[in-house]
Amino acid sequence: MSSGFQNYRRFYTQTKHLENISSLLHWDMETMLPEKGREERGSQLSLLSEIIHERNTGNEFRVLVDQAKQSVLSDSNSQSKLRELEVLEEDLEKAQKLPTSFVTQWTESTARSQGIWAKAKRNSSFADFLPVLEELIGLAKKKADYLGYTNEPYDALLDSYEHGAKAGEIQELFDGLKVELLPLISKAHEFPNPFLNPIPEEKQLKFCQRIPVWLGLSQEVSRLDLSIHPFSTSLGGRDKRITTRIIPTEPLSSVFGVLHETGHSLYELGLSEMPEAPNPLTEFLSLGIHESQSRLWENQVGRSKTFWEFAYPFLLEDFGLKSHELPFDSLFRSVISAKRSKIRVEADPITYNIHIILRFELERGLINGSIQAKDLPELWNLKMMNFLGQSIEKDSEGVLQDIHWSMGGFGYFPTYTLGNLFGAQLFSAYSKLDPSYKEQWIIGDFSGLLQWLKKNLHHVGKWHSISKTIELATGETPHHRFLVQQLQEQIISIEEAK
Amino acid sequence: MSSGFQNYRRFYTQTKHLENISSLLHWDMETMLPEKGREERGSQLSLLSEIIHERNTGNEFRVLVDQAKQSVLSDSNSQSKLRELEVLEEDLEKAQKLPTSFVTQWTESTARSQGIWAKAKRNSSFADFLPVLEELIGLAKKKADYLGYTNEPYDALLDSYEHGAKAGEIQELFDGLKVELLPLISKAHEFPNPFLNPIPEEKQLKFCQRIPVWLGLSQEVSRLDLSIHPFSTSLGGRDKRITTRIIPTEPLSSVFGVLHETGHSLYELGLSEMPEAPNPLTEFLSLGIHESQSRLWENQVGRSKTFWEFAYPFLLEDFGLKSHELPFDSLFRSVISAKRSKIRVEADPITYNIHIILRFELERGLINGSIQAKDLPELWNLKMMNFLGQSIEKDSEGVLQDIHWSMGGFGYFPTYTLGNLFGAQLFSAYSKLDPSYKEQWIIGDFSGLLQWLKKNLHHVGKWHSISKTIELATGETPHHRFLVQQLQEQIISIEEAK
Repeated sequence: MSSGFQNYRRFYTQTKHLENISSLLHWDMETMLPEKGREERGSQLSLLSEIIHERNTGNEFRVLVDQAKQSVLSDSNSQSKLRELEVLEEDLEKAQKLPTSFVTQWTESTARSQGIWAKAKRNSSFADFLPVLEELIGLAKKKADYLGYTNEPYDALLDSYEHGAKAGEIQELFDGLKVELLPLISKAHEFPNPFLNPIPEEKQLKFCQRIPVWLGLSQEVSRLDLSIHPFSTSLGGRDKRITTRIIPTEPLSSVFGVLHETGHSLYELGLSEMPEAPNPLTEFLSLGIHESQSRLWENQVGRSKTFWEFAYPFLLEDFGLKSHELPFDSLFRSVISAKRSKIRVEADPITYNIHIILRFELERGLINGSIQAKDLPELWNLKMMNFLGQSIEKDSEGVLQDIHWSMGGFGYFPTYTLGNLFGAQLFSAYSKLDPSYKEQWIIGDFSGLLQWLKKNLHHVGKWHSISKTIELATGETPHHRFLVQQLQEQIISIEEAK
Repeated sequence: MSSGFQNYRRFYTQTKHLENISSLLHWDMETMLPEKGREERGSQLSLLSEIIHERNTGNEFRVLVDQAKQSVLSDSNSQSKLRELEVLEEDLEKAQKLPTSFVTQWTESTARSQGIWAKAKRNSSFADFLPVLEELIGLAKKKADYLGYTNEPYDALLDSYEHGAKAGEIQELFDGLKVELLPLISKAHEFPNPFLNPIPEEKQLKFCQRIPVWLGLSQEVSRLDLSIHPFSTSLGGRDKRITTRIIPTEPLSSVFGVLHETGHSLYELGLSEMPEAPNPLTEFLSLGIHESQSRLWENQVGRSKTFWEFAYPFLLEDFGLKSHELPFDSLFRSVISAKRSKIRVEADPITYNIHIILRFELERGLINGSIQAKDLPELWNLKMMNFLGQSIEKDSEGVLQDIHWSMGGFGYFPTYTLGNLFGAQLFSAYSKLDPSYKEQWIIGDFSGLLQWLKKNLHHVGKWHSISKTIELATGETPHHRFLVQQLQEQIISIEEAK
């Protein structure tokens, strides 16, 4: 390695260390921190953010990257180094498009608006949130202008989460999905909770601790803790932690939380296994791709009958239940149960994506100017009635339910459904290649799937565009029919189980 | 506050944030970190150390301190600011006395030597350790020359841990103590372990969790976890964490670990409660003073009959024992039990200090040149026979038992016994002022003692010298008779219990 390239890599690696340290501070804050330590933790995190921002955008890094580029251009065998610097420069250029004064204003407004949103949600008063929401939409449009776009301003925002994605293409995917989803949703059926008594925390945790190990996330590189909201975080190349939360009356909630977060952490672990990690090519490809990995393990694996046939005896043992207290059929029925809920985070795989499509259509209109913020509650409630037949009585269970817009996160929502689409498409490709996978799953061996994902997705990192990565892995650019097929199968299971 | 002073304080506070972040990384490494995350954690810690070192010794801070000084000199009401900058400059000057090349060599040698020591200890072979020990002694002498001294080189090393202390004065204190200790040691008596069965981890932890709360360290500012070696650490002004370890067959080991570490954390918490903390005046005064706080709660409180009369019912409940299974008298006998051990870390309050005096006499000779490293085992074994009547068969349980010298920590050992001396003297002063303290302790109220310590020690911070601080708190400069009196009382309890 040339010294110019080495110097840039050393600097990059040190910044990555600081980012991982920042992740530790966050993890500790959500899982361990004594209550009165919170305020100072905020100052510690701000200071680290400043140091990291300065390193990423300052002149020192820029000069090192330029020197690395010079040294690589004179190197005949440097394809991967060139691609690495190309990926890096895209990010650097994006960061430099936003003036410091704008970033300060953005940080200030989004910090303030989250408090206003939380209060407005408690009071179920959209009018209280409207002024700051209008301010944020104005800033988001300004951000889009700074970042630049070809077709529409929304594309510029989307690009931060899903690089290269265009609203027009997403609309096409989502329209195809919507047409097929609506009839499926009408067949959703809710089965009763099979747990007659609450399952205490320690028993749930005992079972939950098994799941990451089954899936391939060993305790040598991970740990599971409790937090208010489940999350996955990377604290180092070999330190990928997950959390879940325990609801005693709904033990499957923590189980699916762990399946989901394990999926995220397996992806992060796979990326860190790439040669010469960490470097810009070993960062995650997009939020949609990240979500595809959590959804795949949660829905394709965790909602399969085979997985539960394997896991059922362990669940009985850990929960201290006899099979007549929790018959397999009752348990599996609750795994595939689906209902039309008003609340996104309570939705099941069948109804979930319609919540996202609703939000995507609204936020695209907000940014492109075809929708006024003041009309949001009316439009929200109308769509909710049309899509899910649900009548919204209070804004707190309607337009105010999610934190995302109050954080300025316009363009984030579609990545959830992209994750579901990618996850279904990837799994479909795998299952065609290895059609006997159920014989492995029934004895608790999920390594075939993990190895395939590592080879075709995790270890590919940021080499290709999102679309190209999906195409190389599955033989086809992203399409909605794989997810539709999966949800149709779930409806068949529901019909059979009724 | 003038802007010059504010600027320096902001920089200082940010460095303190980074130090606290570094403490979090250490804490996590000892309590939570998945095994394979260790290597990268080392790199994260090195990077932070570099950043902190650069901030503390770089020109930017020096300029800010000079500007702060200028602005304070023109301020008529600035006594505390002047003292603050004076304390700070003493540290800065000391740091600048060591050339960078020497610091690098020191870091390299001490890192290497710890591995050599660990292996030599395993093989019980002093000869394997001797060459690197001689190298370290040479470096320590060089360090003393860089730092400067009036009487003897050992003073310069001592000063890093116990600012202002002189070997001659410590020798005088220790000689006085030794004369009184040796006859007491001959009366040490070991009582049998009163626990007939092992107490499992969760039961021990249940009881241990109560102790910090009883002593005044609430769960809002602290937490208790498990680690291989017990420790206390400050992660922020309101985030003082402690750890202990569980030995199922010796449940009092974890209890005394928690009492000890709680004492350290209460001191750190008290320092952080000072006005305008953190600043150089709110840092801990010395290692000896720090240790006085852990020893005071461990030995003056935790080995008192009154404490155990209060704690006994809780211990029975948490351990799931009936009183006939663990009679109070048997329990208390094991609390005051004392025996002549070869190993320092297994020693009780009666024999502990003689282990330290032995080490102090040897290391002072090593640094001042009156003792050759090659003669250490012979001298160690001779003193061990004279002081404790113990015959050393293997260097692993003799001269190789402690890690300190392999870390270059010459001058560290005496702070342990200074802690015992200060702790006993402080407690003696408190008990004279508040002679009815046992009436409070018997109902679990230890706040009188804590308030007195806060007022007379914690909230005084680094205002005065060590000796002056002790004198102001107790009416007398440090003297050995308070500790002797306390140990004599323990011997009386032993005689009564026999």
